[in-house]
Amino acid sequence: MLLEETVDRIGELDAGAMEEARSCQKNLIKPYGSLGMLEEVAVQIAGITGQVKPLLENRAVITCAGDHGVAAQKVSAADQEVTRQMVQGFLDGGAAINVLARHVGSRVICVDLGMIRAFDDPRLKVRRIGPGTGDITKGPAMSKEQARSAVEAGIEVAVAEIGKGAQLLATGDMGIGNTTPSTAILAAFTGFPAALITGKGTGIDHEAMLRKGRLVQQALKVNRPDPRDGLAVLAGVGGFEIGAIAGVILGAASLRVPVVIDGFISGAGAMIARVLAPRSVNFMLASHLSEEPGHKVMLTWLGVRPMLQMNMRLGEGTGAALSFTLIDAALKIVREMATFDQAGVSDSGLR
Amino acid sequence: MLLEETVDRIGELDAGAMEEARSCQKNLIKPYGSLGMLEEVAVQIAGITGQVKPLLENRAVITCAGDHGVAAQKVSAADQEVTRQMVQGFLDGGAAINVLARHVGSRVICVDLGMIRAFDDPRLKVRRIGPGTGDITKGPAMSKEQARSAVEAGIEVAVAEIGKGAQLLATGDMGIGNTTPSTAILAAFTGFPAALITGKGTGIDHEAMLRKGRLVQQALKVNRPDPRDGLAVLAGVGGFEIGAIAGVILGAASLRVPVVIDGFISGAGAMIARVLAPRSVNFMLASHLSEEPGHKVMLTWLGVRPMLQMNMRLGEGTGAALSFTLIDAALKIVREMATFDQAGVSDSGLR
Repeated sequence: MLLEETVDRIGELDAGAMEEARSCQKNLIKPYGSLGMLEEVAVQIAGITGQVKPLLENRAVITCAGDHGVAAQKVSAADQEVTRQMVQGFLDGGAAINVLARHVGSRVICVDLGMIRAFDDPRLKVRRIGPGTGDITKGPAMSKEQARSAVEAGIEVAVAEIGKGAQLLATGDMGIGNTTPSTAILAAFTGFPAALITGKGTGIDHEAMLRKGRLVQQALKVNRPDPRDGLAVLAGVGGFEIGAIAGVILGAASLRVPVVIDGFISGAGAMIARVLAPRSVNFMLASHLSEEPGHKVMLTWLGVRPMLQMNMRLGEGTGAALSFTLIDAALKIVREMATFDQAGVSDSGLR
Repeated sequence: MLLEETVDRIGELDAGAMEEARSCQKNLIKPYGSLGMLEEVAVQIAGITGQVKPLLENRAVITCAGDHGVAAQKVSAADQEVTRQMVQGFLDGGAAINVLARHVGSRVICVDLGMIRAFDDPRLKVRRIGPGTGDITKGPAMSKEQARSAVEAGIEVAVAEIGKGAQLLATGDMGIGNTTPSTAILAAFTGFPAALITGKGTGIDHEAMLRKGRLVQQALKVNRPDPRDGLAVLAGVGGFEIGAIAGVILGAASLRVPVVIDGFISGAGAMIARVLAPRSVNFMLASHLSEEPGHKVMLTWLGVRPMLQMNMRLGEGTGAALSFTLIDAALKIVREMATFDQAGVSDSGLR
């Protein structure tokens, strides 16, 4: 019952620490609130960690990989083999996520949740649920037991990283075809018509995008997942790596570690996490607004706000990694700025 | 004739380097375009510098300070004395801009363009045009000669920093009351009614904001600046530090150095720069979308897109400094990512 125990352990934000963080912000030499989300992020992190000036130096991006039966429907511009090739790229350190993680002083943990073929490399964490999911346009992605296993795998990976000292986590994904199940998850939870929230993913053309929207609608019709049941939605129209992302979020939240959500696929995982444990959303930080048209709806539904709007649509955890440096900036503001008293600045009208 | 010489020296972007930068992006293991603005920024910087993989390690935020006669109309929540106090804070290293500049490995250059009182500190660059501007609701902010001097002061400061090795510049501002002239500049160039583009600045209340909008309208009625004449708009409804910001941009552009524009006040300076030298806009990078309601109109008019949307509204150069780390990320992507050939990833459909 790892999932239930983890959900039960997720607490409220620390209201006292947040109040202290707000007081601290009010004393710094700037109009209160004028640093916008830099201030809000610092307050939220105080609420999560219980500390007003934490150092979150030990950090990891957890990039979850899996394959998708629906790729057979040509929903992606890329070959399914690219999932495996990109995972090799992550392990070798030459992918975008590696570059951006190094830029922000983070390690990348790559987890195989179920690529088509198993992969023998000691640098890869293996938590395989199956050799790719079923084609969601014809039946469920996975069984309910597999859905639970995928989420629990994510919990275990997050808990293990936190056990090794991680103080800040990010989610990432790799899986050719995975914007299709993510769109289906979004449609299942929000009721939005698929045509309005289906995008071009890796870069399909307009005709293929319209077809993809119809396939999403078909997947919902075939599987009819109950939107009150997170595991049912994951099993019906989800993906192994999407379940693991939900698990990473729940694991982080249960241990009061801030977890940064990457783009559209990570957002789908975050929706599953929120349905499984509504409080988990308080421990999430949104990183960027993706180019995928459904992402804005997703973030609104989650109730989180992105910091970056750079039209990124790569996944892997790239947007989340990039935002680590903004979180660092937010915490340095608290640690390093002078107060009105220290600097002899008049605070009249400013706090 | 420093201004005219500088404007004449501003060239076109290097189309060959940009094409090479795009080819380089197409070879990296990701769908072409999927890193959004990280890719676009790298291409633009190639066009500016002529180099596809430049290291822009030597960098400076140039924070321009000045006082405003219109502060007498109570357009700001803060006392005018705060301009001077905050400049002291910049020199002492405890303000937000100092923290964020340290975070991104940048120095801060603080320039007095005309605070109410002169200030004796060897760390402050002094280029005083006058002891604060005139009240724009009653007459011009400054003479046309002063406007030219303010812009030329900015050019000189930028050229001096580039002479010392700066490869990347950002603009910043300090001046209690300076959202009012910035709004007037925006209205003068765009014809937007002041009521639609006037915001709360440092944090005035709604009533005061409505009154501020009427004062902006009055300033335009009293001064009637010709929107085809950048110096006339600056002289009529501008500010000394706003003119200097325009000059910093022109100086950077003339020497092919990328210049990052901070928020609303820096954007007003950028508008002046664009009218004086339309090509200068190619050398600008927008950093963030500010909380000021007119900022979106301003960036649209300039034709630049922000990377960050964090509801910041502090100025000083804070948003621009924060975006230096995103520019670093963009350039590391080009330098450090593996190519399809190197990594053995199938590029079919991805470039």
